[in-house]
Amino acid sequence: MLHTSRRLISLATGLAIGLGAASASWSAESLQDVMKRRGLTEKDVLAAAKTYVPTGGRDEFVVFSSGGQSGQVIVYGVPSMRLLKYIGVFTPEPWQGYGFDDESKAVLAQGQIRGKDIVYGDTHHPSISETEGNYDGRWLFINDKANPRIAVIDLHDFETKQIVVNPFFKSAHGGAFVTPNTEYVMEAVQYAAPLMEDGFVPLEEFNDQYRGGLTYWKFNRERGRIEPESSFTFELGPYSQDLSDAGKKDSYGWGFTNSFCTERYVGGIERGRPPFEAGCSSKDTDYMHVTNWKKAEELVKAGKVRQEKGTYYIPMEQAIAEGLLYLVPEPKSPHGVDVTPDGKYIIVSGKLDSHVSVFSFEKIMKAIADGKFEGKDPYGVPIIAMQDALHTQVNLGLGPLHTQFDSKPCVAYTSLYVDSQVAKYDYCAGKVLDKLSIHYNIGHLMTMEGDTVNPQGKYLVALNKLAIDRFQPVGPLHPQNHQLIDISNEKMQLLYDMPLPLGEPHYAQAIRVEKLQPTVRYKSGTDSRTDERHPNATRAGRETTERNCDADGKCTVLVKGTVIRSHITPEIIDVVEEGDTVTIALTNLERAQDQVHGFAMYGQNVQLSIEPGKTASTTFVAEKPGVYPYYCTEFCSALHLEMQGYLLVKPKGYEVTAVKMIEGTIYSKADYETQVKTNLETQAVIDQVVAYITARNFKDFPTAVALVEDATDQLGFAQEAKAKAESAAGTEDWQNAMLWANQWWQYQVKAADLGLRAKNLLDEGGAKVTQ
Amino acid sequence: MLHTSRRLISLATGLAIGLGAASASWSAESLQDVMKRRGLTEKDVLAAAKTYVPTGGRDEFVVFSSGGQSGQVIVYGVPSMRLLKYIGVFTPEPWQGYGFDDESKAVLAQGQIRGKDIVYGDTHHPSISETEGNYDGRWLFINDKANPRIAVIDLHDFETKQIVVNPFFKSAHGGAFVTPNTEYVMEAVQYAAPLMEDGFVPLEEFNDQYRGGLTYWKFNRERGRIEPESSFTFELGPYSQDLSDAGKKDSYGWGFTNSFCTERYVGGIERGRPPFEAGCSSKDTDYMHVTNWKKAEELVKAGKVRQEKGTYYIPMEQAIAEGLLYLVPEPKSPHGVDVTPDGKYIIVSGKLDSHVSVFSFEKIMKAIADGKFEGKDPYGVPIIAMQDALHTQVNLGLGPLHTQFDSKPCVAYTSLYVDSQVAKYDYCAGKVLDKLSIHYNIGHLMTMEGDTVNPQGKYLVALNKLAIDRFQPVGPLHPQNHQLIDISNEKMQLLYDMPLPLGEPHYAQAIRVEKLQPTVRYKSGTDSRTDERHPNATRAGRETTERNCDADGKCTVLVKGTVIRSHITPEIIDVVEEGDTVTIALTNLERAQDQVHGFAMYGQNVQLSIEPGKTASTTFVAEKPGVYPYYCTEFCSALHLEMQGYLLVKPKGYEVTAVKMIEGTIYSKADYETQVKTNLETQAVIDQVVAYITARNFKDFPTAVALVEDATDQLGFAQEAKAKAESAAGTEDWQNAMLWANQWWQYQVKAADLGLRAKNLLDEGGAKVTQ
Repeated sequence: MLHTSRRLISLATGLAIGLGAASASWSAESLQDVMKRRGLTEKDVLAAAKTYVPTGGRDEFVVFSSGGQSGQVIVYGVPSMRLLKYIGVFTPEPWQGYGFDDESKAVLAQGQIRGKDIVYGDTHHPSISETEGNYDGRWLFINDKANPRIAVIDLHDFETKQIVVNPFFKSAHGGAFVTPNTEYVMEAVQYAAPLMEDGFVPLEEFNDQYRGGLTYWKFNRERGRIEPESSFTFELGPYSQDLSDAGKKDSYGWGFTNSFCTERYVGGIERGRPPFEAGCSSKDTDYMHVTNWKKAEELVKAGKVRQEKGTYYIPMEQAIAEGLLYLVPEPKSPHGVDVTPDGKYIIVSGKLDSHVSVFSFEKIMKAIADGKFEGKDPYGVPIIAMQDALHTQVNLGLGPLHTQFDSKPCVAYTSLYVDSQVAKYDYCAGKVLDKLSIHYNIGHLMTMEGDTVNPQGKYLVALNKLAIDRFQPVGPLHPQNHQLIDISNEKMQLLYDMPLPLGEPHYAQAIRVEKLQPTVRYKSGTDSRTDERHPNATRAGRETTERNCDADGKCTVLVKGTVIRSHITPEIIDVVEEGDTVTIALTNLERAQDQVHGFAMYGQNVQLSIEPGKTASTTFVAEKPGVYPYYCTEFCSALHLEMQGYLLVKPKGYEVTAVKMIEGTIYSKADYETQVKTNLETQAVIDQVVAYITARNFKDFPTAVALVEDATDQLGFAQEAKAKAESAAGTEDWQNAMLWANQWWQYQVKAADLGLRAKNLLDEGGAKVTQ
Repeated sequence: MLHTSRRLISLATGLAIGLGAASASWSAESLQDVMKRRGLTEKDVLAAAKTYVPTGGRDEFVVFSSGGQSGQVIVYGVPSMRLLKYIGVFTPEPWQGYGFDDESKAVLAQGQIRGKDIVYGDTHHPSISETEGNYDGRWLFINDKANPRIAVIDLHDFETKQIVVNPFFKSAHGGAFVTPNTEYVMEAVQYAAPLMEDGFVPLEEFNDQYRGGLTYWKFNRERGRIEPESSFTFELGPYSQDLSDAGKKDSYGWGFTNSFCTERYVGGIERGRPPFEAGCSSKDTDYMHVTNWKKAEELVKAGKVRQEKGTYYIPMEQAIAEGLLYLVPEPKSPHGVDVTPDGKYIIVSGKLDSHVSVFSFEKIMKAIADGKFEGKDPYGVPIIAMQDALHTQVNLGLGPLHTQFDSKPCVAYTSLYVDSQVAKYDYCAGKVLDKLSIHYNIGHLMTMEGDTVNPQGKYLVALNKLAIDRFQPVGPLHPQNHQLIDISNEKMQLLYDMPLPLGEPHYAQAIRVEKLQPTVRYKSGTDSRTDERHPNATRAGRETTERNCDADGKCTVLVKGTVIRSHITPEIIDVVEEGDTVTIALTNLERAQDQVHGFAMYGQNVQLSIEPGKTASTTFVAEKPGVYPYYCTEFCSALHLEMQGYLLVKPKGYEVTAVKMIEGTIYSKADYETQVKTNLETQAVIDQVVAYITARNFKDFPTAVALVEDATDQLGFAQEAKAKAESAAGTEDWQNAMLWANQWWQYQVKAADLGLRAKNLLDEGGAKVTQ
């Protein structure tokens, strides 16, 4: 046991070195040296200082960004521009177990289209839930453009809880946008198609049978779920509806949705017709749709709206008759329609016009009240003349696309796609204030809480569509580039280029960090997708493996197991026969933050991510006899690799012959006694660490307190193993005595690990001696 | 046309503002102000300056990191610690079209296990291809632990090209590790299982029937593929083989593979047995396996090795008889086995011992030459005594795990998992030089080119297993934390914490950026997974849509189409009937860097990522009649949203009745003339931009040159559209005249976009007036 005793010396030495290091010099280079060596300007160093977050530090804002074709949502911090998480939404992602455990498969199954599993989504516009027009940090909504779906993510655990499929649409780029108290989530059609008919309708009937639409999905805050049965959809003309924004304050109760291709052009370049891009951008104007959702809601509640496909449906005829729907011409091919923080104006940017158009809500209401319309569209919808609705137009440059707001009154920022610039301007006075070039071709932009009634200023992020030469080349498919811009001064300053390594974000929203209060653990035995107790949850010591067969000889195996540092219970599953349906449900017994366990198995497409308290399960058919190793996929402790087990699938009708397991190694009384000696010495060292910690004000460090609690648990487990070892020794069963003594030591190592982490933390945080 | 003329003014104004902005002040705050406001120390600012990379700057190193349970590979830059790409490897990822296009589905299908698609992989150890022991930047290899597979990624385009399944193993944590000229890729068993038998073998026969193993996969550099038919596998004892490293220089021709659980313990905590973690860590030592691959290769070539399952298989008996396999005891439960840059020593770290053990290759060879063994293992493999192989042991601390090397001779770094520290030491003299605390529980660590014969020093990355309190909370599942450490001085300095937003990296390798020379485009019509011409590639103007039925009435539709800013050809696919198998192959006609197009379709799980020159295809059964919009998923130009089309699936036997498409909007001669006027004005502005660019030394800026080339292409297309417009006008077909005139203008806008990007680039780069 040469090494064991040396190990103890090391632990003591480690303490000494740890203390010494704090006073040592930390660099041979000055800031000037580094600037010279790395070719940095003073401007660069200032930008670095404005964005750098030291270890353990916090950002000011958390951003939720769509992941585009990745089907996911991206989370990052501002100003550090560090990526914090990709949340699986429409596409399976095994790290999170998303689409690999039974619980999340049930969520994904809600998103089936015409009975088919769809494992792809094109996420575009995230929307944080709001209360009185401010982000409340409770939920996040995101749309799928390719398949008209909306997902609900709960921000208490950053997991996707629900997917709803639009029963009418075949495409929905324009979502998700919430109303000021998250009463509704807006989602609009992009490419017109028949609404009522899932089947074939010839394109020649485009004008008559193809339609646009706008759904107001009802959100139930109590349940944290969208309720299709209380939602309603407007039938709209076959214009490509695009983005929306809900009115707020003065314009509360109304919604604004723009559109392109109001030419109702159908391409066909392969047959000699000019392409869609030509025919869909020929007119000077398209239409902003103005909808009165508050009044529509009243009609729904009054039973005056017809039910279709499990939800409510408002035909254009009814919308016109009830005064729920109006059109306002807007400059051609617009993208962004953005309501100002005070709700008084709606700013529309038309990608093929050099202006932003600032519409006045008051003027729109006046035209409606006066019944002053310039005409009707081919479907009878009244059109308010542009000049009757316009407050002003501001000439910004080529390709204005999307607008966000500053904390300063009347100050807005609009992205200029073609000019590759951000324009800052006064939308009240109609005056340009500043412009900044970005790299390259900015799509959306985002200010901090820029969609709320209280934008926070400080930073702006340019969501650029091309990166080209900005980053180290990584093949023909480039990362995207989000550029962080300081907007706290008169002049905008570019601070940071962030490559996005996966997916093409379209839009993002930033929320102050203090509004997010996610949990770090679940109540023991929770199904995280329903937030209810999992039917197959179990507790330590209550693990079961049961096989049951029905009258037809169909058999199922149900394992209710647990995981904890560092073993899976059960370690052997040997009741399975070829053809059985096997369900393995595992509950993570840990309470400690970040103490996640995983579960993967050879050849079965199984991967669970089991955070503290969670119960996750996997169900598969054991099609072929064989030996299937399984293991924990999270590096959870020093003995992580030994957190393993075997599923054995026997051939049908296999006869078990009683064979005794032959031990690979036989232990003696001497082995046991040596191990016990080691354990007692280890305990002395642990006591040293405990003394070091408790002599200091560790209770002022929440992470240290949590580590101490966890270490206390581990020492409790050590006591249980010690009892088993001593019991076996009592009957001279040296094999089990030695092994349990070693298990006792394993728990000690875990406790020591935690103690050392706590010690490092206290040293770094400058804890004081109190005793 | 009010707005069109204003647009022109804007363009001119934009030029003026762009020039003016360069001289403006860029900040109101000094560095001291920022430090005070953000609470930064001088040390923080120095760390920020050491890591910050300004816009357009380059990193010094590119890191390839395993993605753990995400099934992917992660790419990032050092020292900026910015994530550049997630490469899809074992798990489908739609942004890249990986697992969503026919070509990559064929790669994933190579990874089937016993006939089943496996869409999950647990990637652990990436390995960059080597030439004479140095990274050559050509290929990357990565293993899947859950399913014993190795993937080959080509670094010319960062795409996965091949997946090979180990025909013997049921688990393989210890891979991939290359030999010094990438002759072979090493992969070892983790959890023992029967090698020859895919079926059931009772666990009671563990000692006799379960086996470990080590495969040397033959890599063919000409083909860029692994060749199973020339590879060979060693049968090994049922010890959990862990990591490997190939000998280099002095030790060239040999390989070293460690192991744990040489106790051959089988757990069963659910039946009262101590768990695996206790039984697998009871002995003081495990075994390092020493294998002679050079001699084994000779035997294979000489036809002396038996063939099994399409590859070569070396039973232990033969390996012993031929002197190919030896064991050396190593401290308990080791993880890393790392050969020093000169090949003279092998450093083993045992997680449950406080030392690293430095073995001498010379001493091992001497013991073998002298036939000096301390005994044999239960399978007859000769064991060299530890003291006969050991150079020295260095007492570092708790949980030594993995070792990397400095550019300075004899200097190594070992991660200490339990102590949460990095130890720097002299392995020749056996002396500790420095220690640094990290957060928390470091697994592997990585120095720059640290696995080669020429480590580059400068930086070290700690791949920590827990983050706990380091980042803004994002729910129970935390990001991982990679900490960047400056090792250029005597004392290590922590520079940066990087959260990993997806997956749990295990190991990583860093290569100098100049060794990577990826392409930005494919030769037109390339299948990127085979790097050969795609059979369904086509060219502009040659697009076809064909439907063919066989004798049984089974019909297939084959579309050979193209994509370019901003239309898909064909825009309408209307020959499909319910039940047809549809293949859509699209070739990206673009040449410009980063000008990617995507392709998604409603309800069909279709997503292609089509980089310049690539041909990608999707095949699906059109199960149900209906209207299926499709569109480009990459924001490729201002008219991106209009890059759309429709697949129409008709009911079986549907009779087409000749209905003429009704135009949504009718254009007059006046519309045409107004559009032409706009176009001529736009051309004048383009000429202005062109003059601005060509008056400067733009040829000194490669990106500007590429943009100008692309703009020239766009203006060529504009000329073609102009000709069509004029031709239609010639026959007084004002509808087509107007639409083609608008298409002509669309190309002008694209050219202007490119010109403005080039102008911004020149302004930023300080281009000089030359004319």
